[in-house]
Amino acid sequence: MNSRVLIALVILGVSMIDRTPQAVSRSAGAQLSEADRAAITSVLAQQQTAWNRADVRAFMQGYWNSPELTFAGSSGITRGWVPVLARYEKQYPDQAAMGRLDFSELEMRSLGPDAALVLGRWHLTRHTGNLGGVYSLVFQRFPEGWRIVHDHTSSDATPD
Amino acid sequence: MNSRVLIALVILGVSMIDRTPQAVSRSAGAQLSEADRAAITSVLAQQQTAWNRADVRAFMQGYWNSPELTFAGSSGITRGWVPVLARYEKQYPDQAAMGRLDFSELEMRSLGPDAALVLGRWHLTRHTGNLGGVYSLVFQRFPEGWRIVHDHTSSDATPD
Repeated sequence: MNSRVLIALVILGVSMIDRTPQAVSRSAGAQLSEADRAAITSVLAQQQTAWNRADVRAFMQGYWNSPELTFAGSSGITRGWVPVLARYEKQYPDQAAMGRLDFSELEMRSLGPDAALVLGRWHLTRHTGNLGGVYSLVFQRFPEGWRIVHDHTSSDATPD
Repeated sequence: MNSRVLIALVILGVSMIDRTPQAVSRSAGAQLSEADRAAITSVLAQQQTAWNRADVRAFMQGYWNSPELTFAGSSGITRGWVPVLARYEKQYPDQAAMGRLDFSELEMRSLGPDAALVLGRWHLTRHTGNLGGVYSLVFQRFPEGWRIVHDHTSSDATPD
């Protein structure tokens, strides 16, 4: 019994050592698990599909539904799920303004057991003029799944 | 002895439960510890001081010295410590271009035991024209301290 308890202690100890700062320097920029990568890819795919049927509220399901959600860009920081939705609705009032959204060049890095950084490129194809740029998304894992807790989006200096 | 081992197991178990996904939903947007907050603040203060003596290499000490460092903005994504340094040197070739840097409106959130998100506003006071905007910094903890592993910086749509 004592030896079993000691073995359990050793296993627990080893699993905790893996969370020490030293482990991070090896894992900074680490790959996410395949399951987490697939879950995050699915959130982004659902956003893209929602946007392309001009359903901004469904697009917003990818974001953490919290007053602490933040969105950063050339107009500063927007704070809260409702204000971020309002910003999208103001900036993209109809299907013509929304155009067709494509995400590309996705890259994902683990930031720990329950957080990830996702970089990518966005592109809007529109009759009124195309737009594009890059984004940095911080995802966190919630009981309901991975959600964006912070979005920093830039437009390219010279739109294509 | 057995009871001491069991108590140790319970303590280890409780400390591990705190890392489960359910804990994250309570701690998303969580405060960093005072020590971590002070360490990150110190990295940013050193960057500001280095910039204001026109020492870009010292400024770059706040960044993770890795080919995997990323910097995102209106010119896309720059990858690697050396290219990020080169970008700063090109964009800010002399003290006049660098001006006086101020950081303000800092906010920090824990993303787990060894990662943090820092939002803030930057402002350059220059004879050639002021510049400003917001940034999102992802910090990770390394044996040598907290370092920026990803920087997404925007200029305000209308510079002041």
